[in-house]
Amino acid sequence: MSVRPPETHGYRMNHTMLRVKDPKASLHFYQEILGMDLIATSENTDFTLYFLAYDHSEGKLTQEEKAAQRFTREGIVELTHNHGTEHDANFAGYHNGNKDPRGFGHIAITVPDVQAACARLESLGVPFQKKLTDGKMKHIAFALDPDGYWIEILPNNFKLN
Amino acid sequence: MSVRPPETHGYRMNHTMLRVKDPKASLHFYQEILGMDLIATSENTDFTLYFLAYDHSEGKLTQEEKAAQRFTREGIVELTHNHGTEHDANFAGYHNGNKDPRGFGHIAITVPDVQAACARLESLGVPFQKKLTDGKMKHIAFALDPDGYWIEILPNNFKLN
Repeated sequence: MSVRPPETHGYRMNHTMLRVKDPKASLHFYQEILGMDLIATSENTDFTLYFLAYDHSEGKLTQEEKAAQRFTREGIVELTHNHGTEHDANFAGYHNGNKDPRGFGHIAITVPDVQAACARLESLGVPFQKKLTDGKMKHIAFALDPDGYWIEILPNNFKLN
Repeated sequence: MSVRPPETHGYRMNHTMLRVKDPKASLHFYQEILGMDLIATSENTDFTLYFLAYDHSEGKLTQEEKAAQRFTREGIVELTHNHGTEHDANFAGYHNGNKDPRGFGHIAITVPDVQAACARLESLGVPFQKKLTDGKMKHIAFALDPDGYWIEILPNNFKLN
């Protein structure tokens, strides 16, 4: 077991950035379907950044307080929208990393009740790469976000073998 | 501002999965250089999963307590090692998502002192896609992990415009 270098005190795994074609579709998915809050937005000439994260305060935090956690908390998803892709018929879409050339695999959401969570996603029309009933691992599903990124859904009380 | 669906209560943005060629190099980077703890490992026939995260307890948590947070916390990096890639001369390496076909962009680490953090990374021989002094954004750097994934390094007290 390694000893943490003291110089890294205070470091946070703050966010994961994914490019998205159409922010309207992505914000609907991450907010209304997955339940994240939009805690900050950064508009630039050619692109806009959307920062989303779960509120663990049971609704006690104000929008300003959520925004203030932008650089101090973990578990943020940063969506980058390069302006115009949503209207560009020649835009081929983004690469989810799970076909060649591979690299990034997925982000994962842990949930209290994976059966209920996946049933709700299905009822909302979310497509799946792997449903709970597919394959050997019956406790894990992979939903697809609007760009085709894999979103693992798994129980928060899962025990690794 | 959207209202969070009550069905999503308890959800966590638990982890981000990246495939890595050589776990020895990656574990050195994420543990010894970035300062994360290896909180869990899952060995399988063809692949091994390594779960890394920052300990925010000031060293109070035991390894068992860290492992117990595996599915309840946020900010975990899951590294997937498909066995054999580290010795395969024909393995081309993984795709970092920032050249065509694009998609995933980076993970980001927020730090108390970005100048000190980047100076330390440089002194340890970590290559950079963008140093603090490159380009217009002097407060943000992008280091490269052993597979070439972009690791954004930015201050935890940064103010978005």
